[in-house]
Amino acid sequence: MDRILLEHGSGGKKMHKLIREFFAPEFEMKSFGDSAVIDIINAERRTLNAERFRLAFTTDSYVVSPLFFPGGNIGELAVYGTVNDLAMVGARPLYLSAGFIFEEGFLINDMKKILVSMAEAAKKSGVKIIAGDTKVVNKGKADGMFINTSGIGVVEGGLDISPKNIKVGDKIIISGTIGNHGVAVMAERNGLSFNPPVLSDTAPLNHIIQEMLGYGEVHAMRDPTRGGLATTLKEMALESRLCFEISEEAIPVAKGVIGVSELLGLDPLYIANEGIFVAFVKNDAAEKMLDALKKNPLGRGSNIIGEVVESPSGKVLLKTRIGGTRLIDMLSGEQLPRIC
Amino acid sequence: MDRILLEHGSGGKKMHKLIREFFAPEFEMKSFGDSAVIDIINAERRTLNAERFRLAFTTDSYVVSPLFFPGGNIGELAVYGTVNDLAMVGARPLYLSAGFIFEEGFLINDMKKILVSMAEAAKKSGVKIIAGDTKVVNKGKADGMFINTSGIGVVEGGLDISPKNIKVGDKIIISGTIGNHGVAVMAERNGLSFNPPVLSDTAPLNHIIQEMLGYGEVHAMRDPTRGGLATTLKEMALESRLCFEISEEAIPVAKGVIGVSELLGLDPLYIANEGIFVAFVKNDAAEKMLDALKKNPLGRGSNIIGEVVESPSGKVLLKTRIGGTRLIDMLSGEQLPRIC
Repeated sequence: MDRILLEHGSGGKKMHKLIREFFAPEFEMKSFGDSAVIDIINAERRTLNAERFRLAFTTDSYVVSPLFFPGGNIGELAVYGTVNDLAMVGARPLYLSAGFIFEEGFLINDMKKILVSMAEAAKKSGVKIIAGDTKVVNKGKADGMFINTSGIGVVEGGLDISPKNIKVGDKIIISGTIGNHGVAVMAERNGLSFNPPVLSDTAPLNHIIQEMLGYGEVHAMRDPTRGGLATTLKEMALESRLCFEISEEAIPVAKGVIGVSELLGLDPLYIANEGIFVAFVKNDAAEKMLDALKKNPLGRGSNIIGEVVESPSGKVLLKTRIGGTRLIDMLSGEQLPRIC
Repeated sequence: MDRILLEHGSGGKKMHKLIREFFAPEFEMKSFGDSAVIDIINAERRTLNAERFRLAFTTDSYVVSPLFFPGGNIGELAVYGTVNDLAMVGARPLYLSAGFIFEEGFLINDMKKILVSMAEAAKKSGVKIIAGDTKVVNKGKADGMFINTSGIGVVEGGLDISPKNIKVGDKIIISGTIGNHGVAVMAERNGLSFNPPVLSDTAPLNHIIQEMLGYGEVHAMRDPTRGGLATTLKEMALESRLCFEISEEAIPVAKGVIGVSELLGLDPLYIANEGIFVAFVKNDAAEKMLDALKKNPLGRGSNIIGEVVESPSGKVLLKTRIGGTRLIDMLSGEQLPRIC
């Protein structure tokens, strides 16, 4: 047996065998049928202050093409992406579910590689994949495989991180260089190679964010994935009803990304990222946080890229290198489809 | 705009517009990007006893073909399926996430119908859909649409419902007639029509189960979806290491299902169901529970179909109508692919 068959999605013998052989050894799944039941108050030998925690809940489907790309694959993307969505509200990610849709004929070996990556990614992130599901559709009715991960985390101690909390005077920090993930996927898709290669930045951000939170007040965070930094900032400007002034010069872009973007007419501000975040932090904490971020390998490229002003409300203004001001809007159209 | 475009999955303007126009009005989504944050301890004006609840977590992807079938569509299936997976461990379902994968070109009108169904199904089930995600893949790379729903519920008061708790002497109750969902989907797929039509039994089981739990001890439950009643019973026999003796005569099958099954050589025991469950209950509570179930429209067809004996361990024995005994195994191969 080297390929996924329709019968692997039937609920019967073949499906049970597939789960037993390939999924069960990698994950701590308590549920492939009904539900996993978890005692989150007392889990992991840590007692949550039951009156003071809220639950964070998020979902994402992953349809990246190709499934394997420089620096990662769909499996780790699916784990880190959901871990990061939890981390963005200040949650400690705890549990993930994973739902798989396979196209009939998918190579078992590729599946195995992806599952192993997911297990490693879960370990690195400190989360457990406890609920799962597998479905199979006929040849030609999907594209290899799609993964959905949903995640649960806990927000402790009354922490409230949200664009509505952004304040005038907040500094805007980016945690690393932009554009890497999108360029890595695009390169693989088009058979381009760069020297040095541009790798996806897919990574778990929960640990570095927990560190950062120790240094002062963080008002809002978001990871600029689909739509890139520009779209994310514009979303947050609209939600906060404030104005963000950012400096082109301060935005870190990797050399390889600049080159490719110029060559292909892409704007790095709109290219998808995976392992970076943008944080709106209280003015007086920004420098301390930046120092702390820079000491973490995931934050080496971090920088303060701008600050929040009162008006014009909902706008993002980019000061260009040559001294002009550019109004930044959301991505219009589609630059690179199926990037995550 | 009457069809889904690749740009609807870009993260940019078109995606925001789609979400604002079609998803936001139907659901109570707090998150389409990062995470929804919920205060489950104090939610819904009910205070959970914080020391005595556990969390139930489950996921399922839905790839049913066709998307619309007699008695339902993929949207309500995706809500009820996940609600029921929570209900099967005795949880009160609270929150759902919904991840959508669209094939480019999908009709906006069909999407709208499906979203409206999901909203109605959520309302009927008493759950809130609070987190979501939309992705779009190129024409020919998916089959219309796929939906993943994940769900969170609370198991209160130390309730522990699991096949490991099944005991010798337990009565086995089925809550309704078997085979309806599978036959309804198959009929639609093959352009067959029956008179009266066979409708999918897709329905939320959480309320009827909460009622039943008031009448006595329930040791285990499961909804016999993919693989049918036979596969579900075999799974549970293996997990409990006990033997189930069931009676063919006692298993309710709708007339239309019997006819089609004979015609097409299908075995109703292996046909997928959606809105029924099988429960293992303490002997002395079984009759009271059955009376209660029969009063609920979802339990009208309920019956006691057998009981649990010590050995042979892991076996399901069916007493046939003509007095023989048939050993029941899991579904082997694939009877009806893409049933849910």
